[in-house]
Amino acid sequence: MRTQVAIIGGGPSGLLLSQLLHRKGVDTVVLERKTRDYVLSRIRAGILERGFVSLMREAGVGERMDREGFIHDGTLIAYDNESFRVDFKDLTDTTVMVYGQTEVTQDLYDAREAADGKIVFQVEDVTVNDADTDKPYITYRTPDGEDRIDCDFVAGCDGFHGVSRQSIPLDVRREYEKVYPFGWLGVLSETPPVDDELIYSNSARGFALCSMRNANLSRYYIQCSMSDHVEDWSDQNFWDELKRRIPDEAADKLVTGPSIEKSIAPLRSFVAEPMRWGRLFLCGDAAHIVPPTGAKGLNTAASDIYYLYNALLQYFEENDSEGIDRYSERALARVWKAERFSWWMTNLLHRYPDQTEFDLRIQRAELEFLRSNQAAQRVMAENYVGLPY
Amino acid sequence: MRTQVAIIGGGPSGLLLSQLLHRKGVDTVVLERKTRDYVLSRIRAGILERGFVSLMREAGVGERMDREGFIHDGTLIAYDNESFRVDFKDLTDTTVMVYGQTEVTQDLYDAREAADGKIVFQVEDVTVNDADTDKPYITYRTPDGEDRIDCDFVAGCDGFHGVSRQSIPLDVRREYEKVYPFGWLGVLSETPPVDDELIYSNSARGFALCSMRNANLSRYYIQCSMSDHVEDWSDQNFWDELKRRIPDEAADKLVTGPSIEKSIAPLRSFVAEPMRWGRLFLCGDAAHIVPPTGAKGLNTAASDIYYLYNALLQYFEENDSEGIDRYSERALARVWKAERFSWWMTNLLHRYPDQTEFDLRIQRAELEFLRSNQAAQRVMAENYVGLPY
Repeated sequence: MRTQVAIIGGGPSGLLLSQLLHRKGVDTVVLERKTRDYVLSRIRAGILERGFVSLMREAGVGERMDREGFIHDGTLIAYDNESFRVDFKDLTDTTVMVYGQTEVTQDLYDAREAADGKIVFQVEDVTVNDADTDKPYITYRTPDGEDRIDCDFVAGCDGFHGVSRQSIPLDVRREYEKVYPFGWLGVLSETPPVDDELIYSNSARGFALCSMRNANLSRYYIQCSMSDHVEDWSDQNFWDELKRRIPDEAADKLVTGPSIEKSIAPLRSFVAEPMRWGRLFLCGDAAHIVPPTGAKGLNTAASDIYYLYNALLQYFEENDSEGIDRYSERALARVWKAERFSWWMTNLLHRYPDQTEFDLRIQRAELEFLRSNQAAQRVMAENYVGLPY
Repeated sequence: MRTQVAIIGGGPSGLLLSQLLHRKGVDTVVLERKTRDYVLSRIRAGILERGFVSLMREAGVGERMDREGFIHDGTLIAYDNESFRVDFKDLTDTTVMVYGQTEVTQDLYDAREAADGKIVFQVEDVTVNDADTDKPYITYRTPDGEDRIDCDFVAGCDGFHGVSRQSIPLDVRREYEKVYPFGWLGVLSETPPVDDELIYSNSARGFALCSMRNANLSRYYIQCSMSDHVEDWSDQNFWDELKRRIPDEAADKLVTGPSIEKSIAPLRSFVAEPMRWGRLFLCGDAAHIVPPTGAKGLNTAASDIYYLYNALLQYFEENDSEGIDRYSERALARVWKAERFSWWMTNLLHRYPDQTEFDLRIQRAELEFLRSNQAAQRVMAENYVGLPY
């Protein structure tokens, strides 16, 4: 098989790139390790930056998102049983869109299929070959046997555990990492969200987040120990603990119900550099992970796709490799800003096992400064709605 | 002896309070452990916030400051051999004043003496008595013998090592502290400053600061180990090291000369709460210490003086104790914001022995974000010129 861009990974990043390039006449093949149903069963992020929203529209898949998504003009930040609001619209003239990653992925699959886009599922033993030459190719195995794709470029959209990053030799690859000493216990429930907007809460018992996917699908999280087991958290215990960590006013309004998904996720900051090696480009989780505080994971993947999409168009349409040559530098400049913001927001809102009394007071001073200072709110809002590409 | 307000400590805070109250007809006595010459020989801060400048004028001692001080509209921040400017004037419509603490103290002494203000020098064994009653008094010893001051209120302006804070019982006093794993080696030299504005530099070899007192008096600092000894740092070594830590363009312009003062100071964050106990009020270093990055030490003392001065006027002129009752809360709210800013700016610019590669990249991302984002520059500028009282 031959294509112009081989895309490893059929999650939202890979599909978005495939769909964007398709609309410009660039041929792609997407390789996905799992099945389509499996990919669509993953519960992930739900807050889309303006840049992501624009890319979805540019890819021709914005219709349902624009119809069913919820515009959020701001968010609530709570501590000490009180909350204050950061008004994104007022501060930045921009908003975010609440629309689940599952829906994004669904829409992209529908579009790729409608266009007869080539997606190969259940691929194993994917190997990126000769990425440092002009003729890279990918070998892999499916239930039907071994296969090979020859291509001009390889986009590695296969996540943190994928093969793409590992394909960059260790002597050129540098990795930066911070593992946080806690996790997030998340519950999805078919209940109306406690508030129209998200509530990020710093409580003495640890962080909590009240989020949502739609008007009858709520997503709640509480900071937990990474030694906790999800089986040991009954729904009742989860709701009780959540209520203790959010302002009374919210706790009183909280509608609880059976969880339809419950899981514990670790919090990690991670960046691999460079994001390009020869004709292989890393995108999204393949190159970087952020802790979920601040909702930058999917959105930072999207900014990589933006840079790579434009670089590939520049190459195919104008025979100019400037965008490709600068992809890593451009993507990383924005990645590190998202890393900084996610790290800052994580520090602002979580309790750390080794926090001193001084550290706690500084955290509180940061919250009070944010509450009282418009420029500080603008910094947060500009980051939250997404820094410019 | 009897007075309305007994002030322990004849540094700038105590003198400023004394002078402000004098002009409103409130009688004070200042007790100072050292001699006037000793106090005036201490080399300290040199950047005054707008609020401090206003208080000096209100105290009737702003004339020489306004004539000889230098207005700074901005500051330079350097890293990786480059620098960018944060324009205070443009961002906040406010500036700071460069005028040495020694000059401030000189002007205040001159004013107190011109008004026959009572200052007792070389006091020892100062004890605050009955501060939790309506009739506090202070006992002390001078070269002439033992003495006592009866008063309505006691202002503790006697610094970190003074007796005032120690007079608050341990069961009501809470202390918060962070000691940084480095110090500042400072040099004063009779040379023209390398730049019209300050240069704060984050270099791979550690922090450096190019500051000044006037057109022919420069103050330079480099981050050093607290195990360093000042005797082991020759002038030549200091200048060589400073040049390695600032952009080449600045290093090439640097005029060196013999040091007229050279010392190593530790960096500490410290806050004691409450700042009021009965009729005893803590001001400045007696209650809180900031690391010098950001120049908030003297300025935060001045904001305490502002709150206490107004609280005392409210009491003496209107017989209203609201200001006194809320002094601790009001002062601390601003103190913690200054602590947060000083901690942030210290973290932004110094190299830490335990910094990981990830931490270094986050620090760099913070510098790049600050360079590129106007809201972030505004946050810094608003803090640097001084948050409103």
